[in-house]
Amino acid sequence: MEITGHTKLTGLLGSPVSHSISPLMHNKAFELLGLDYSYLCFNVGVDSLADAVHGLRTLGARGWNCTMPDKQRMCELCDSLSPAAQMIRAVNTVVNENGILIGHNTDGIGYMMSVKEAGFDIIGKEMTLLGAGGASTAIAVQAALDGVKALNIFNRRGRSWEHAVKLTDTINTNTSCRASLYDLADAASLEKCLRESSILTNGTSVGMAPHESECILSDDSLLHPELIVSDIIYNPRKTRLLQMAQAKGCPTFNGLYMLLFQGAEAFRLWTGKEMPINAIKQAYFTPSNF
Amino acid sequence: MEITGHTKLTGLLGSPVSHSISPLMHNKAFELLGLDYSYLCFNVGVDSLADAVHGLRTLGARGWNCTMPDKQRMCELCDSLSPAAQMIRAVNTVVNENGILIGHNTDGIGYMMSVKEAGFDIIGKEMTLLGAGGASTAIAVQAALDGVKALNIFNRRGRSWEHAVKLTDTINTNTSCRASLYDLADAASLEKCLRESSILTNGTSVGMAPHESECILSDDSLLHPELIVSDIIYNPRKTRLLQMAQAKGCPTFNGLYMLLFQGAEAFRLWTGKEMPINAIKQAYFTPSNF
Repeated sequence: MEITGHTKLTGLLGSPVSHSISPLMHNKAFELLGLDYSYLCFNVGVDSLADAVHGLRTLGARGWNCTMPDKQRMCELCDSLSPAAQMIRAVNTVVNENGILIGHNTDGIGYMMSVKEAGFDIIGKEMTLLGAGGASTAIAVQAALDGVKALNIFNRRGRSWEHAVKLTDTINTNTSCRASLYDLADAASLEKCLRESSILTNGTSVGMAPHESECILSDDSLLHPELIVSDIIYNPRKTRLLQMAQAKGCPTFNGLYMLLFQGAEAFRLWTGKEMPINAIKQAYFTPSNF
Repeated sequence: MEITGHTKLTGLLGSPVSHSISPLMHNKAFELLGLDYSYLCFNVGVDSLADAVHGLRTLGARGWNCTMPDKQRMCELCDSLSPAAQMIRAVNTVVNENGILIGHNTDGIGYMMSVKEAGFDIIGKEMTLLGAGGASTAIAVQAALDGVKALNIFNRRGRSWEHAVKLTDTINTNTSCRASLYDLADAASLEKCLRESSILTNGTSVGMAPHESECILSDDSLLHPELIVSDIIYNPRKTRLLQMAQAKGCPTFNGLYMLLFQGAEAFRLWTGKEMPINAIKQAYFTPSNF
């Protein structure tokens, strides 16, 4: 694809950001579909985010993703928000509609698509989610909006507890999903919830490289073979949690396709076209190249 | 070239801008040299230029070109200016050195390189320049800085006369070139100047498509076969002025390579590398593709 005077800018804001796989994924997808867009990364932290966003709007950029640490501040910089972004209070995808910035959050959508991609259907069922940080919040809200029947959120008592309380409240107020919040240290509640749940999702970073030896569950005693166990982590591909779950006979999947599908949804929002998923998977989401 | 998270942004600001050949030229040159840059066009007028520039700085763009109507305002938005840009009071190329914006003007350099490219040496000689608008100003200043001995500027009495007076003054104050300003209607002075000049340059847009039938000189009586006649216009390739000059036996060249070389100089300022001129010429500056 030749970049011309008509090529539209998209990109990723965050800090750090240069390691991201997103430019590869999006630029390849633009090329495969013959779409006249380009996707670049911009190292921008929270302090200069307003300036960067104002600049991108002025430059007529079509839209952008944002990642850590910019997602919450980006939420405040948009002119309007999707229902999910409104509830999550964080934005990872902005669409610039002629100067009007519409904030979306495709992280939860990416997760829910990765559940389907793994061959599971959790709509109308019960879910247990570990953590109430950024990723977990997006997953919780989208799961609730998509029709998961009940959501058990387990979080550590600490700084984020207040946020977790608000999140639970927001879900109960705005969706038909029944959300409950528990202390992660409450083993009895966790046991009961996992017995009733179809899926367990680790939404924390516990077990992520370089801390692969850590695990959000101290042992496998609460896992049962009917429970789908998923992790948002993709480095390592198989966290200790997923190893433990597989040994127990649980179906499992990691966070790799959540990353793919959050991007695919952003791509759809900017271009109105479906990302060519299989080609992108093959190019960037196989063990050899990722 | 794959665009990655490390790819640096460059581009063009102006309005209109989407027709520009610059993205083709620069992106091809980046690709040929394996340089990790991308060049995009942004439709930005004077009113929003400060916002756009602030945004590009925040986004960490490596630099940008600007064209009509933004060149003078861009001059005010830079932190420092090259000697030529300072004298021209207009910037067509900005280099972002870690947040410090350095303004350059490569239009005059582009013209002077196109003189060389056409096989001529005008250093130490006399030049007659028609017009004192943006392009003429850049050419006049660069010619003076490069060592043209005397510069006769012919301009219409009108709005730009005061600017032409200042330009003449600036050149006489800051360079060893002797600059003189004349009324374009003063046929006697024009005759005298052309007799003493090595080169005549039309720096006005008179004769440019769609007004190909117009000509800055009413007839060929003042042209003599030893006079190099050049036009900054490249559409049409051969203006009526150049046709007239060729019929009189004058060597001529048009503005095509001024465009190429102003870009090559910007490329060098951003990347520290020489643009692969021959390949770019062949790709974008031959009659078949331009």
